[in-house]
Amino acid sequence: MENRAIVMTEIGHFEEKDVPMPKVKSGDVLVKIEYVGICGSDVHFFESGHCGASTCTVPFILGHEVAGTVIEVGENVTTHKVGDRVALEPGQTCGKCEFCKTGHYNLCEDVVFFATPPYDGALMKYVAYPAHMAFILPENVSTMEGALVEPLSVGIHAAMQGGVKLGSTVMVNGTGCIGLVTLLAAKAAGASQIIVSDVFNKRLEKAVSLGATHIINAAEEDVPGKVAEYTGGRGVDIVFETSGNIKSIGQTIDNVRRGGTVVMIGYSPADEVGYNFGKLIDKEVTIKSVFRYRNIYPTAIQAISSGSICIKNIVTHEFDFENSYEAFVSVSNNKQDVIKGVIKL
Amino acid sequence: MENRAIVMTEIGHFEEKDVPMPKVKSGDVLVKIEYVGICGSDVHFFESGHCGASTCTVPFILGHEVAGTVIEVGENVTTHKVGDRVALEPGQTCGKCEFCKTGHYNLCEDVVFFATPPYDGALMKYVAYPAHMAFILPENVSTMEGALVEPLSVGIHAAMQGGVKLGSTVMVNGTGCIGLVTLLAAKAAGASQIIVSDVFNKRLEKAVSLGATHIINAAEEDVPGKVAEYTGGRGVDIVFETSGNIKSIGQTIDNVRRGGTVVMIGYSPADEVGYNFGKLIDKEVTIKSVFRYRNIYPTAIQAISSGSICIKNIVTHEFDFENSYEAFVSVSNNKQDVIKGVIKL
Amino acid sequence: MENRAIVMTEIGHFEEKDVPMPKVKSGDVLVKIEYVGICGSDVHFFESGHCGASTCTVPFILGHEVAGTVIEVGENVTTHKVGDRVALEPGQTCGKCEFCKTGHYNLCEDVVFFATPPYDGALMKYVAYPAHMAFILPENVSTMEGALVEPLSVGIHAAMQGGVKLGSTVMVNGTGCIGLVTLLAAKAAGASQIIVSDVFNKRLEKAVSLGATHIINAAEEDVPGKVAEYTGGRGVDIVFETSGNIKSIGQTIDNVRRGGTVVMIGYSPADEVGYNFGKLIDKEVTIKSVFRYRNIYPTAIQAISSGSICIKNIVTHEFDFENSYEAFVSVSNNKQDVIKGVIKL
Amino acid sequence: MENRAIVMTEIGHFEEKDVPMPKVKSGDVLVKIEYVGICGSDVHFFESGHCGASTCTVPFILGHEVAGTVIEVGENVTTHKVGDRVALEPGQTCGKCEFCKTGHYNLCEDVVFFATPPYDGALMKYVAYPAHMAFILPENVSTMEGALVEPLSVGIHAAMQGGVKLGSTVMVNGTGCIGLVTLLAAKAAGASQIIVSDVFNKRLEKAVSLGATHIINAAEEDVPGKVAEYTGGRGVDIVFETSGNIKSIGQTIDNVRRGGTVVMIGYSPADEVGYNFGKLIDKEVTIKSVFRYRNIYPTAIQAISSGSICIKNIVTHEFDFENSYEAFVSVSNNKQDVIKGVIKL
Repeated sequence: MENRAIVMTEIGHFEEKDVPMPKVKSGDVLVKIEYVGICGSDVHFFESGHCGASTCTVPFILGHEVAGTVIEVGENVTTHKVGDRVALEPGQTCGKCEFCKTGHYNLCEDVVFFATPPYDGALMKYVAYPAHMAFILPENVSTMEGALVEPLSVGIHAAMQGGVKLGSTVMVNGTGCIGLVTLLAAKAAGASQIIVSDVFNKRLEKAVSLGATHIINAAEEDVPGKVAEYTGGRGVDIVFETSGNIKSIGQTIDNVRRGGTVVMIGYSPADEVGYNFGKLIDKEVTIKSVFRYRNIYPTAIQAISSGSICIKNIVTHEFDFENSYEAFVSVSNNKQDVIKGVIKL
Repeated sequence: MENRAIVMTEIGHFEEKDVPMPKVKSGDVLVKIEYVGICGSDVHFFESGHCGASTCTVPFILGHEVAGTVIEVGENVTTHKVGDRVALEPGQTCGKCEFCKTGHYNLCEDVVFFATPPYDGALMKYVAYPAHMAFILPENVSTMEGALVEPLSVGIHAAMQGGVKLGSTVMVNGTGCIGLVTLLAAKAAGASQIIVSDVFNKRLEKAVSLGATHIINAAEEDVPGKVAEYTGGRGVDIVFETSGNIKSIGQTIDNVRRGGTVVMIGYSPADEVGYNFGKLIDKEVTIKSVFRYRNIYPTAIQAISSGSICIKNIVTHEFDFENSYEAFVSVSNNKQDVIKGVIKL
Repeated sequence: MENRAIVMTEIGHFEEKDVPMPKVKSGDVLVKIEYVGICGSDVHFFESGHCGASTCTVPFILGHEVAGTVIEVGENVTTHKVGDRVALEPGQTCGKCEFCKTGHYNLCEDVVFFATPPYDGALMKYVAYPAHMAFILPENVSTMEGALVEPLSVGIHAAMQGGVKLGSTVMVNGTGCIGLVTLLAAKAAGASQIIVSDVFNKRLEKAVSLGATHIINAAEEDVPGKVAEYTGGRGVDIVFETSGNIKSIGQTIDNVRRGGTVVMIGYSPADEVGYNFGKLIDKEVTIKSVFRYRNIYPTAIQAISSGSICIKNIVTHEFDFENSYEAFVSVSNNKQDVIKGVIKL
Repeated sequence: MENRAIVMTEIGHFEEKDVPMPKVKSGDVLVKIEYVGICGSDVHFFESGHCGASTCTVPFILGHEVAGTVIEVGENVTTHKVGDRVALEPGQTCGKCEFCKTGHYNLCEDVVFFATPPYDGALMKYVAYPAHMAFILPENVSTMEGALVEPLSVGIHAAMQGGVKLGSTVMVNGTGCIGLVTLLAAKAAGASQIIVSDVFNKRLEKAVSLGATHIINAAEEDVPGKVAEYTGGRGVDIVFETSGNIKSIGQTIDNVRRGGTVVMIGYSPADEVGYNFGKLIDKEVTIKSVFRYRNIYPTAIQAISSGSICIKNIVTHEFDFENSYEAFVSVSNNKQDVIKGVIKL
């Protein structure tokens, strides 16, 4: 067997190259990758070499939404067997810090995360990975769905951070991939009213097809006014802010009900955003936030398998491994149309 | 207008009688009752004059699962109008004790609860009731469904006490009305695996039709053995015990996973039930319990209206007001077959 | 008996006047007031007629931190007797809205709150009040301490919103009355490290006397730098922001640890304050807020009675009822020195 | 350097023996042990070879309450230096199971725990241990106190499981070491009323000296009656059951208030204990349980260092390493008098 990877040799340029077959250590499984999802962060690195505060140096390998099939089992692995299809959770944490020990491992400062500099991603044919981070997919969950467990996990973590429960009324700002998986997660957790805002009607229609009960075009409509109208003046229990838009962030305090919760998920391009903390206090609102996820893979897989969440509906474009460069160019050029692209190996 | 009620003049005997039209006080709405559900507690009082530790004296009026239409609005009511269809939450609490003030009003010791001695129920044509306890039904929720909000609220409260979330694995012991509404609530809150046990196959089949993923006939199968089989030896996250069966109560500690939760809902006929608290400690399990519900009516109505819960499927028998006696005799004699009977006015 | 009140007849001007003896309704107790605390909001109304978004019209009576002795018991009151000393919780809520029913009554929009326009306060000799809002003081708690239960309740609510537990490390921004009661509450709830910042050394010394383990003069020192030094670079578990200072609000995200909690309590003079929500997300921090309090009076009284909190230490100035005008002038003119003034009747 | 251990060569018999110096692996620190506490479980193994469901085979080394000084630092350890005094958390967990990942590592089934068969304890001169499990003691905390962090952690975990907060009223059944550390933890977390029951007056007096506000001799007094008297008929917020006594376990439901919490900590000699679950439902009580602890060492050390908890007061007997046999015999023979014995090296 030979391993091949899509290597970003210069910013915005890919080459398919031979890379070494990974060594299967004790506790590892060797996985033949079948699907890699294209995340917004991958596209940012492809376009500019930067994503938020993070900068990559070439050569660099992208890809952290990954699933495949186990083709070899390392020593001391009793949980997996050859042929198991698995989704890989991309962050390997230290296990020793207070965050790891308390279960908040997404806050570990020593994490090794696929495609987060200085660590390469997994857009390649074979990866060796700790078995306990390779979650077995049930028969009725495909490896394409397995690759989508990663972004879905962000949405589920968001829904949990917000405390969605049966009968909750929620609002989702933004209909990018993360906005939509948050919508799906909120709905599956029992939300009964789901208001979605964005500036693109096409994306808002997609939201309706996934379960939004009301939509607001933020470029054309008075957002707080419409939220008041749709909620009888009360505001929603939980606002999920995934757009990163400054105005949208500021309006979260108007759209949430007294005693409700705002969940910050999307990064704003501005360092500081003006916020009315006086209103926050008057309404005794809570702001939660979402950094990746923790302990969500099993939940996400169960939710897909049981039919609570139909994640494959978010995929709009599929590409071949050999055409990874075209895939990234296409995604980069059609941001409004591409909700989720995946690469098939 | 004349008011008429079904009055239990002797234990096990009903008479339809004229009763005074209720006085509509400030803050009240006058409701023409359209549906009254028959609860197990009603049947206990009908059969024996007792229910648990509670004893009624005749004459006594049964019925606490109630919905109808507002036909008059009292002074100072701005929230309701004539024609609104409403579900009545049956417990009026003191508003002054520590339980009321902290939102745990179901623990108020001065509650006035329909059909709980010494207070009469609502199996009658007209009831005046505080507007804030008469929850308006959306257009797509019928008054029959409105009457079922009461038992459903117990199920939703149980699911919340147990902490059901997306992907939870649960077990429901017992398939009476409360077992089934708990199943529906757990499913709507995102449970992915729902194991149900009972001794009647017919009822287990009903559970499957409502969303059970696995069933166990407790009279014929080794319950902990099957739970272990269905959960890969792990046990379920949450066990809901609605059967009151002594063996079933004792086995909850075997069926729940380490660190999981048991929710006690059904009363056992025995005062004391043997329980293995050593296993409870070893597994660090939590036992929660359910006494009625609190702050659930809006949630339950939303869940019905949004389609998360199809509550009308639990109704197996419908009777006319005039045939209330026949209704109770029928329910009393066919406990295995009647999951839920309702009386239509 | 004659009732007398201190009436603000013009902004900044008081007159002692005869007012009617209150009518003792069913459920009420008649209380002879013994102490009224002077709150910052009282001083704002005295100085300008405004406090935050609220404006009073004269004549207006100030005072909402109140305790005294029961001298008459109304009908249907079984919980109180003449001679009981009581602290009055100043907000009477509707009991019917979703916030009241769920125990979040501090968010009730129909609250009648002492000295919050359009409702008069209690700077008078006699007040009739619902017995269930008049909390009986144990023998070892004075009525002066009883009056201080009100501001202390804000501090305890803040500590609970922040989730202080045994061993927590906390920071308190601002050493006004609310900052100091928050300090006391955090300490009593088990906080082991308490860093306090302010710009006045005199007040910082007061904080040390009440339990602060570290102090920072925000006018002279690099606040995030000192917090990093005192916490080994980790940041504190919980930041309580009571200063309302724009810079202090913005720095909360630097001073709190990853996964920690910021509690917003103090109002800023600016409508909007710039906040780095990107850091909030990266650290997955939670922002809670505090609007008054709920269900805290019994806790506060227990904490004083058991010795967990020595609240009388915050009182720096005591005045007579007859000198209420001088009291307010003095407090208004000496904000740096007066931490807490009380008026004795 | 030579290592020496106290080895149980036969049940009830100790020999001091040479054992190999431990190998200091990457990530480890080498610790010269200074104090080892004697736990009830150690005494059970000494007396009978059994403790609960666990059985040891000789030779076996006891001791899991351990503190000492770092004398060597392994590769890749940046957090510790020679001379640091440390308390060792005795359970090393797998880091890979759902319990470890979610922070509930005390439920890990693959734990290696000192003095829990088949793993030896630490009653020896030198131990090599992972640095991240060797918690550094501040200057004002002695290694004797460091050894006591282990039992204290059980008490703090119990207080947290019970949800003790400022002003809580609690009851502690049993005044063995675990009962007393639970008392200390509850008090430090803000409990204002602490009722303690036992059958030995001497131990009850000890409880008073540590902060109990009320005591009940369960052999002579009507326990629920006294609790009702002390709480005005309400019951306590939280009952901590550490005695394991069958009657005491059964009465927890009578002593707790409506909506309150019972925390099960002590093992009963009986497999099953009769419990009134009907009362549990009527009062909607929660039962929590305590198996060891998780993430408590830093908290416990902070609580000792800040003065919130004075743990050294529970030590009643100190012995020398060479006299370990006499120590165990003495503790075994004087259970009523020995609250806590420690061995000094």
